[in-house]
Amino acid sequence: MAESLTLRRPDDFHLHLRDGALLGQVLPHTAAVFGRALVMPNLDPPVLTGADAERYRKEILGARPSDGAGSDFEPLMTIKIVPSTTPAIIRDAAAAGVVAGKLYPEGVTTNSSDGVRDVLALGEVFAAMAEAGLVLCLHGETPDAFCLDREERFLFEVLPELARSFPELRIVVEHVSTAAAVDWVQHQPGANVAATITVHHLLLTLDDVVGGMLSPHHFCKPVAKRPADRAAIVAAAVSGDPRFFLGTDSAPHPREAKESAQGCAGVFTAPVALPLLATVFEEQSALDMLDAFCSGHGAAFYGLLPNPGTLRLLREPWTVPVDYDGVVPLNAGSTLPWRVDIDENGASA
Amino acid sequence: MAESLTLRRPDDFHLHLRDGALLGQVLPHTAAVFGRALVMPNLDPPVLTGADAERYRKEILGARPSDGAGSDFEPLMTIKIVPSTTPAIIRDAAAAGVVAGKLYPEGVTTNSSDGVRDVLALGEVFAAMAEAGLVLCLHGETPDAFCLDREERFLFEVLPELARSFPELRIVVEHVSTAAAVDWVQHQPGANVAATITVHHLLLTLDDVVGGMLSPHHFCKPVAKRPADRAAIVAAAVSGDPRFFLGTDSAPHPREAKESAQGCAGVFTAPVALPLLATVFEEQSALDMLDAFCSGHGAAFYGLLPNPGTLRLLREPWTVPVDYDGVVPLNAGSTLPWRVDIDENGASA
Repeated sequence: MAESLTLRRPDDFHLHLRDGALLGQVLPHTAAVFGRALVMPNLDPPVLTGADAERYRKEILGARPSDGAGSDFEPLMTIKIVPSTTPAIIRDAAAAGVVAGKLYPEGVTTNSSDGVRDVLALGEVFAAMAEAGLVLCLHGETPDAFCLDREERFLFEVLPELARSFPELRIVVEHVSTAAAVDWVQHQPGANVAATITVHHLLLTLDDVVGGMLSPHHFCKPVAKRPADRAAIVAAAVSGDPRFFLGTDSAPHPREAKESAQGCAGVFTAPVALPLLATVFEEQSALDMLDAFCSGHGAAFYGLLPNPGTLRLLREPWTVPVDYDGVVPLNAGSTLPWRVDIDENGASA
Repeated sequence: MAESLTLRRPDDFHLHLRDGALLGQVLPHTAAVFGRALVMPNLDPPVLTGADAERYRKEILGARPSDGAGSDFEPLMTIKIVPSTTPAIIRDAAAAGVVAGKLYPEGVTTNSSDGVRDVLALGEVFAAMAEAGLVLCLHGETPDAFCLDREERFLFEVLPELARSFPELRIVVEHVSTAAAVDWVQHQPGANVAATITVHHLLLTLDDVVGGMLSPHHFCKPVAKRPADRAAIVAAAVSGDPRFFLGTDSAPHPREAKESAQGCAGVFTAPVALPLLATVFEEQSALDMLDAFCSGHGAAFYGLLPNPGTLRLLREPWTVPVDYDGVVPLNAGSTLPWRVDIDENGASA
């Protein structure tokens, strides 16, 4: 049994960093482990243009650790695709270095009330994205369907026409939560469609949310589904199929916003992502596939070189903190068999 | 449109009254509206014998309002059927006036760690219950199944043999939450099988728990299911079929036990049950069936006369309190079209 595991430094292709004080609080946990992360634009107010993204990028760079682990972290910027987005906004964003546009159907999750109602009406925007080389990242749920059916409804009603109409557009179906979505991605004819997989969808089912006592810290959108769905997601992650890669969707909410009469959706996984991934991949006898999943496929899909440098995991019991300044991580308080090898001064140690 | 609705005084055939201070706090809300209620035995320690039930009955009687609305409320006592229950305990309980035995599969809900693992191994107990005239009330879920499948698994794996083996035993499948359970009860050949329906399963689906923000005050066991399941439950309730009657499963938990990292299961409906039922039945153009559902069928199944007296509902907007001494009711803060006509000094006014 290997006592350590060395990966190319990983990328997180779906991350919520928020802004202000919370940004400063959570960024070090990602920056200590990941070389890059695709930063979601659903701030309030949202990141809608290249100029917004440039401002937000500067705020993120300013919040990085000044030296040591994470000081070279690079944010990959996104804008939010909303009904008022235009091809000119897309071209301008691309010129400003934005790499992806994020589309939320209206009302589907946190800060999505300005989301898109008629996705397929944005054809000119998608054409401009394809031409400018921006990736389209989709929260693939139809909000007015029953919660367990939302992803499949989006798969059937929106994705096929989108993929057919824009074969040059790179599309990422984010945080796949059903066997149906995994299957759909696997059967796309081109290499332009991929999917991100979160750490928590590899680990949780609906039983972990409502099957015992209610667990707000396991509550996310899309909500975790059946054991067979989880099994399909795990199989895709460890398969080596380059269309599946890590996007944690790590989302920090203060404890009181989760343990509430109206609990926020989102699971905070940034500090625990790699130890949990190593555990899942080892259970599948697939530790050798972890590097491709979290350090290879995503960069390749985005046309990026792998990060320089490496990240080492050690097979040493590590007890996850019960919270990080009031933000509760996945597996809080439990002991994991792997830990990230970071100097004790580093954020994730 | 009728401006008031007069029912025979209703019965609640599934109620959690707890004990100690919480009993004193919640009992008036039930006693002001219901003539009788079947009181669940899952205290800590549980109600296991006729002597336990007699003690608990005295505590409940002592907690009734001393005069006015609710002073004549009558608790119908239950014991908990556990692996150590014997035919002698059953006979003794029946002699003490206990009317039902409640069986929880092990680990399925609040205070059920002493529940039954092998239901069908309790044949002698069920035979004694049939002979003594005790009703068997079942929390019909198989705990080790996926949360959405637990009721159907119990239906297929336990109930058919139980109903076939003990045709003289009256069985109540409590808080039906699926179309499958409704269908199974409807297709039983004898009159010995019935089902209770809660107020919250008439109103909620899983969307109300995890479909928007997380709603701990909508979290119950069995968890609310699909819209088609809810529709089947509503149809059964308004159908006039005597095998379906009200058992609210009203369960008070302090707000902090619900809005928690480990939220308790249960919905507090005692003070809102009748206004909500009138709303549901009226939406189905079935106000004329409400009396049978909440004041007729249950008493008949238990071999009891209807309660003396009546309860009047008035078509007057009523805003549900945001909590009752820290216990949050269903529809807290919303305005309902019906209210119970109780003197302003009464508990539910």
